Amino acid sequence: MHSLEALAKDYQQNRETILKEFFTFLRFQSVSSEPQFKGELLACADWVKKYLLELGFTVETWPTKGHPVIFASYLKAGPNKPTLLIYNHYDVQPVDPLEAWETPPFEPTVRNGEIFARGAQDNKGQCFYVLQALKALIKRDGTLPLNIKLCIEGEEEMGSVGLSSILKEKAAQLKADYLAVVDMGIPAPETPAVTIGVRGLVTLEVSVEGSNTDMHSGSHGGVVFNPIHALVEMLSKLRDAKGRVTIPGFYDQVKEVSAAEKASLSLQFSAEEYRQEFGAEASGGEQGYSPNERAWLRPTVEVNGITGGYAGPGFKTVIPAKASAKLSCRLVPDQQPEKIGQLVAQFLRDNAPAGVKVEVQALPGCGIAARSEPTSKVVQAFADAYTEVFKKPCQRILGGGSIPVVAELTKVSQSEMVLLGMGLASDKIHAPNEHFGIDRLERGYLVVARAIEILATF
Amino acid sequence: MHSLEALAKDYQQNRETILKEFFTFLRFQSVSSEPQFKGELLACADWVKKYLLELGFTVETWPTKGHPVIFASYLKAGPNKPTLLIYNHYDVQPVDPLEAWETPPFEPTVRNGEIFARGAQDNKGQCFYVLQALKALIKRDGTLPLNIKLCIEGEEEMGSVGLSSILKEKAAQLKADYLAVVDMGIPAPETPAVTIGVRGLVTLEVSVEGSNTDMHSGSHGGVVFNPIHALVEMLSKLRDAKGRVTIPGFYDQVKEVSAAEKASLSLQFSAEEYRQEFGAEASGGEQGYSPNERAWLRPTVEVNGITGGYAGPGFKTVIPAKASAKLSCRLVPDQQPEKIGQLVAQFLRDNAPAGVKVEVQALPGCGIAARSEPTSKVVQAFADAYTEVFKKPCQRILGGGSIPVVAELTKVSQSEMVLLGMGLASDKIHAPNEHFGIDRLERGYLVVARAIEILATF
Repeated sequence: MHSLEALAKDYQQNRETILKEFFTFLRFQSVSSEPQFKGELLACADWVKKYLLELGFTVETWPTKGHPVIFASYLKAGPNKPTLLIYNHYDVQPVDPLEAWETPPFEPTVRNGEIFARGAQDNKGQCFYVLQALKALIKRDGTLPLNIKLCIEGEEEMGSVGLSSILKEKAAQLKADYLAVVDMGIPAPETPAVTIGVRGLVTLEVSVEGSNTDMHSGSHGGVVFNPIHALVEMLSKLRDAKGRVTIPGFYDQVKEVSAAEKASLSLQFSAEEYRQEFGAEASGGEQGYSPNERAWLRPTVEVNGITGGYAGPGFKTVIPAKASAKLSCRLVPDQQPEKIGQLVAQFLRDNAPAGVKVEVQALPGCGIAARSEPTSKVVQAFADAYTEVFKKPCQRILGGGSIPVVAELTKVSQSEMVLLGMGLASDKIHAPNEHFGIDRLERGYLVVARAIEILATF
Repeated sequence: MHSLEALAKDYQQNRETILKEFFTFLRFQSVSSEPQFKGELLACADWVKKYLLELGFTVETWPTKGHPVIFASYLKAGPNKPTLLIYNHYDVQPVDPLEAWETPPFEPTVRNGEIFARGAQDNKGQCFYVLQALKALIKRDGTLPLNIKLCIEGEEEMGSVGLSSILKEKAAQLKADYLAVVDMGIPAPETPAVTIGVRGLVTLEVSVEGSNTDMHSGSHGGVVFNPIHALVEMLSKLRDAKGRVTIPGFYDQVKEVSAAEKASLSLQFSAEEYRQEFGAEASGGEQGYSPNERAWLRPTVEVNGITGGYAGPGFKTVIPAKASAKLSCRLVPDQQPEKIGQLVAQFLRDNAPAGVKVEVQALPGCGIAARSEPTSKVVQAFADAYTEVFKKPCQRILGGGSIPVVAELTKVSQSEMVLLGMGLASDKIHAPNEHFGIDRLERGYLVVARAIEILATF
């Protein structure tokens, strides 16, 4: 029997136990951002630790200022075999608004083949199928064909503060050849894909002050410089008519993507599907690039919020004292977030009209972009596994979003990186009624198990 | 004895009665915009009516869909004498936040020579000194030297809806030679001034939609056209680098102001005082015009509110479905509000980038500008009266704000118009602890009484 079939058969035989254990994992109210759940996070981390100890892993609990990181290793393949580091997290998002849940968020419920619970997908579901893959391989072979390390953190939904702060001191232990970040998705239920990069991020707030008090737009209209005018003028100058960012130096560090690299990516994009799904045209960003090139391979400056004056019902004849905006840049290799943040801030200050005061403040939560070679071994192994499981060629895609810990972990562990997962856009992660397909739990398990086997053969 | 001295003496002798009656007027809770005070408005209107009947006026209560207008006339001067129509209002602004008042808003209290109460200045104070001027002249002479008509409305703080709606049908009764709108102020306590114009107004709301749902700025940044970007680009195009409005046709109907007219106005402006008072530079508006020219004689396009995306604490990586702004234009003769509104709307639509949906909506409350000749008789008479009372040359100024009913009333009554009053910017009208100086109550009385006498001699 082919390994895939055997693994599938084993899963089916243990289906009931697997779901029972998964539901136990889901019942921990491990909401990392809410202090009252601290005990639940510790209990959840402890459950993961015991689970791994039973599989034969060496497990450490790394304390942080917040919630602990579970670090586990299974190094029986020996020093001549490569090491794969797998990243997951056991914390979940808050559940508000609770009344919008059809069934309670911490009582997993199956409806139409989907498991409804907070964390069902993000990231307990994706963490749990990794554990099942390891368990099945160990049960069958008494060992693993690669050295495996697991890093399962408890603060991903809070920006990985704790893990980030201890990464450097744990560099030796985290060292690996490959890194698999299992916290992503596939474009559609029957479309296998691995993700070879995410963009970096830097965020800022700019405020413009025209006076020390709100002023009457009759008496002062045409006299004082309306700070909303100043702000819209400054923001409108960030990009030219072709959508290209005009900030001097903004593109200086952008690494060009070769035609070969582009050819290996699934860049196709359906304007019609986009219109159907979001009621939107793909008309933003830089001209001369296709939508997915703009989302994956090009940096952006985006205004994410703007406020000033009166925006309620009716009208107020006010010239506000202040107007402000929040901006973010999505970054690509090798743009440095701090440097780009400084360029944006300087540009805004330089373009402020006379008579207004401008303040630009960097906001926390920046991170550099992560990108892997489409032909790297770990990308290839997971892509082959997806192709096998889905019986369809696996796409190589990128994510337009940002997971700052990915680049940090890649650097510290000195690994070749791949991002993957079984998430779908419709899973309602971070929202009420989060869910994850039972079929995808199994497929995730198969992909991870087969990728480990394939990678061991390279 | 000079008439001014006699009038002052008479006032001093009746000071106690005058304040007692004024306080009765102030105690009516005539908040026009709050339905629960309907009875108080009727009682207040009735009190005004009785007061005028006792002076010998013929009084009518004009019903409207809202609160009634008190119309009174005293036409004993005969058809060979001109008619002066005086405008006031008996309604007041709401009092919220009540807890910010040092003494209750409807219990008039004197502190440091100032009467504290809602309406103490706006407009009961200014209405009451008109009544005292008429009373003193009638008491002294048994008649008035001019035909006098009074229009005292009850919905000024709601945009004069009721009065506007009946103006045309009351045109014959409102016909006059002169109109005095007694609802304005003076630039400083010892600076006499009459106001010869106010700007018109048109207000709009523009909304830009990029998608039918908020979108993640990672996945979609550079793909969808961020509606905040579209909005700031559109708004930034409204004016050029020199502050001139770029909307085609915007200035077509603007009546040029002659050098002689400008020379008659008090255009001087202290940048230092402006800085001190508002923490602001007078750097807005059109280059090539002085601050008061920009505030009084030039039209504007102003953004009074803007909103889109996330503006709370921290950051959200959102591309909002929608962004919107509220705009107003201050207008000068002979700009037509509806026409200008259409030009602005068309300009915004024409400048929308591809891929977003733009909606522009006209908001209620527009009005045309009103402006008088600086040398007209009614302006001259009131200016002379101010000069006499303040013992200082009276300035001719304009208001940058808009009182839509002024232009309507001027047109319907076929009058030469002047705006005047004893308000100061520090009176806290429309705010807690509104107040009005006892000295200004007397000076207002003197100005109105003397202006009537002077106008009768022209």
